[in-house]
Amino acid sequence: MIDKSLNMVIFSGDYDKALAALIIANGARELNVEVKMFFAFWGLLLLRDPGRMTDEDKSLYEKMFAAMTPKQAEELPLSRMNMAGVGKSMLLEMMDENDTPRLIDFLNGARNKGVEFLACKLSLEVMGFTQEELLEGVKVVDVKEYLESALNANMQLFI
Amino acid sequence: MIDKSLNMVIFSGDYDKALAALIIANGARELNVEVKMFFAFWGLLLLRDPGRMTDEDKSLYEKMFAAMTPKQAEELPLSRMNMAGVGKSMLLEMMDENDTPRLIDFLNGARNKGVEFLACKLSLEVMGFTQEELLEGVKVVDVKEYLESALNANMQLFI
Amino acid sequence: MIDKSLNMVIFSGDYDKALAALIIANGARELNVEVKMFFAFWGLLLLRDPGRMTDEDKSLYEKMFAAMTPKQAEELPLSRMNMAGVGKSMLLEMMDENDTPRLIDFLNGARNKGVEFLACKLSLEVMGFTQEELLEGVKVVDVKEYLESALNANMQLFI
Repeated sequence: MIDKSLNMVIFSGDYDKALAALIIANGARELNVEVKMFFAFWGLLLLRDPGRMTDEDKSLYEKMFAAMTPKQAEELPLSRMNMAGVGKSMLLEMMDENDTPRLIDFLNGARNKGVEFLACKLSLEVMGFTQEELLEGVKVVDVKEYLESALNANMQLFI
Repeated sequence: MIDKSLNMVIFSGDYDKALAALIIANGARELNVEVKMFFAFWGLLLLRDPGRMTDEDKSLYEKMFAAMTPKQAEELPLSRMNMAGVGKSMLLEMMDENDTPRLIDFLNGARNKGVEFLACKLSLEVMGFTQEELLEGVKVVDVKEYLESALNANMQLFI
Repeated sequence: MIDKSLNMVIFSGDYDKALAALIIANGARELNVEVKMFFAFWGLLLLRDPGRMTDEDKSLYEKMFAAMTPKQAEELPLSRMNMAGVGKSMLLEMMDENDTPRLIDFLNGARNKGVEFLACKLSLEVMGFTQEELLEGVKVVDVKEYLESALNANMQLFI
């Protein structure tokens, strides 16, 4: 699979969809495929580092938004059957029974394996997050930079 | 980027997902990439022209459906945190603070820049909408016409 | 369209999204395009065979999960406007008025036309479903097998 490349937009901030995306990313790296993930909108919630959050330079709306949304990947809700967290707890129990790693493990695995993490510049600005609040190593790019690499990849997904 | 092409299915009728799709479409046109957007199911709600709505030739269910669904792009709800519109108002305020244009502006931008707007024939028939009720310039095509161009594009997304 | 191929991940367990995916799959086969569908997570709910369900070898959580989720494709809810089933009934009435086949018909059509149905190994294990509970002819593959064929396809979608 040398010389193949995969580009994913991670728009969703749902635990289950993020899990699918990161399982695909890890698998692709194990096949030696180049992987870029472009996090936009709710997808940015996967990249927040709870140890680096700040309210400095945030407007009132941005502060409210930062406070109301999940602080890190493991806090994301399910896309369905979340049932105020009951459904998610059940999924996590089922994952444990099967010795399946958690989302955070797949996220760290992807970073260690060399998946490139890109954050959407416009989404960051609208939501009021700064690059300093995100996980280390995340690069900020605009939609044209995303498109230039996506259009040249072998495979693109919108998740 | 000459000779590159992008094909997107817009299945979603969510404000935030439509925004992402149209920001990508505008960016691609600025890179001189050919862009086709195929609107299906809830995605058709982006193409309704509030000045051209009619109940003529609609069955009872089709009338109810037309009345219960958003009349234009700006009325679409968020995919999450919509909270009966509170979350959406908050997002719009945050976009205003950042001088980010609204969905309708990106929609008009895409039309002006030459993005091709296609509506799914089967979805139109099931929902009871007619081509006359849609924005001007939208072409109606079936799934095979969509596939023929999508399979030959450099990049395809389902949003 | 000879020698073209289409690869779709079906992550969603929503009636309307599954309908879109299967309409695309049927259309592609009619154009002689090779089609593979990789069902993961909620998408597995499309592949359950109500005549082959069993609680044998299931943990308590897996039994609960199997009982709480749709038993077959036609029972899936809508992704929006489901309104405890009212919205879905309305959509089905509108499909009937237009003589549009049901999801199950498009599912059977796809199988008869030679669409390859693949189930995600990890999702099956986490949810506690076995291959024996799925529709006949479904093959179980892991994420790397999915990637190997997706990366070589002409078009990939995540639905």
